[in-house]
Amino acid sequence: MKISARNQLPGTVRATTMGAVMAEVTVDVDAGAIVAAITRGSAESLELKVGDKVTVLIKATEVMIAK
Amino acid sequence: MKISARNQLPGTVRATTMGAVMAEVTVDVDAGAIVAAITRGSAESLELKVGDKVTVLIKATEVMIAK
Amino acid sequence: MKISARNQLPGTVRATTMGAVMAEVTVDVDAGAIVAAITRGSAESLELKVGDKVTVLIKATEVMIAK
Amino acid sequence: MKISARNQLPGTVRATTMGAVMAEVTVDVDAGAIVAAITRGSAESLELKVGDKVTVLIKATEVMIAK
Amino acid sequence: MKISARNQLPGTVRATTMGAVMAEVTVDVDAGAIVAAITRGSAESLELKVGDKVTVLIKATEVMIAK
Amino acid sequence: MKISARNQLPGTVRATTMGAVMAEVTVDVDAGAIVAAITRGSAESLELKVGDKVTVLIKATEVMIAK
Repeated sequence: MKISARNQLPGTVRATTMGAVMAEVTVDVDAGAIVAAITRGSAESLELKVGDKVTVLIKATEVMIAK
Repeated sequence: MKISARNQLPGTVRATTMGAVMAEVTVDVDAGAIVAAITRGSAESLELKVGDKVTVLIKATEVMIAK
Repeated sequence: MKISARNQLPGTVRATTMGAVMAEVTVDVDAGAIVAAITRGSAESLELKVGDKVTVLIKATEVMIAK
Repeated sequence: MKISARNQLPGTVRATTMGAVMAEVTVDVDAGAIVAAITRGSAESLELKVGDKVTVLIKATEVMIAK
Repeated sequence: MKISARNQLPGTVRATTMGAVMAEVTVDVDAGAIVAAITRGSAESLELKVGDKVTVLIKATEVMIAK
Repeated sequence: MKISARNQLPGTVRATTMGAVMAEVTVDVDAGAIVAAITRGSAESLELKVGDKVTVLIKATEVMIAK
């Protein structure tokens, strides 16, 4: 399965924080660290834990540029 | 000025494509290339051109994880 | 590969419209039709065409409720 | 009042989970279940509860396609 | 009908630009001007034109803070 | 540094609510109050507190119109 999200970066889960509804997942990628705020349900469904090899996905319409 | 967007990656503009309303900007970062779809008005306001040193900004709530 | 986007609906591409930067893709799902605005580059990369079996993905943080 | 969000699916609230800041709302629609992560303030303002007839709204620019 | 989007600002359409897929709509609100990038299909469905009284809607999870 | 987000409104922080993962920040702007749901990490990194002068940033692709 191929997904339309233009930005897909491979990385490794460095940390996870669980809230009641949301979860924060920090992923080490080559460019540094990327923080994702996903639902706790998603994090649990993926059984995300430190050290997991994952891919970070970001839709192009969500990316901003500063100069 | 400091911005709440958790993900800020430095990079260099590799390509820009202009549409009537939207613009696509490809930025080379350490992790590879990031594609941003911003308004043409934003691209023009920033005077974005190939070779520009920029920062890519992504809000944590927009990031997904695949495993 | 499993993705954190909570909402994944199977469907069939009914129509595509290409712009210079963006593409609109209409997908028939059981609940009706879902319209996606993705980059033209994504649509071309996926070689999307009418009749394709696809999955519509929507991050939970992007969903609103009206009552 | 008509809203620009292209995707509007009628459904019924199946479950709600409240966090300190965010709320997760699961809505049964014809295509299956849609999960929304909205602010707790929004959920309280709408007085969302199981069984409520609601409409799920999703902006086209937030929809992705996998194939 | 009440919608979960936390931010709803009344305003007047000042300008519209149509692309093949997307439309840019500039709305004068009390705080200044707000620019929306919506699909051309949405703009046509709402029959948006200069001078229209509209409401700008923004989901709280899409708002960033700079300081 | 100039950012591509088209909508930038100056305001004053009126309230903050902290969850385990997310934070809600209410900012008074000329048009009324804007609510932002950002990560707790962002709120802490910016040391956001009531009375702070801030700028609210919203990407044009995240704005909807109702009429």
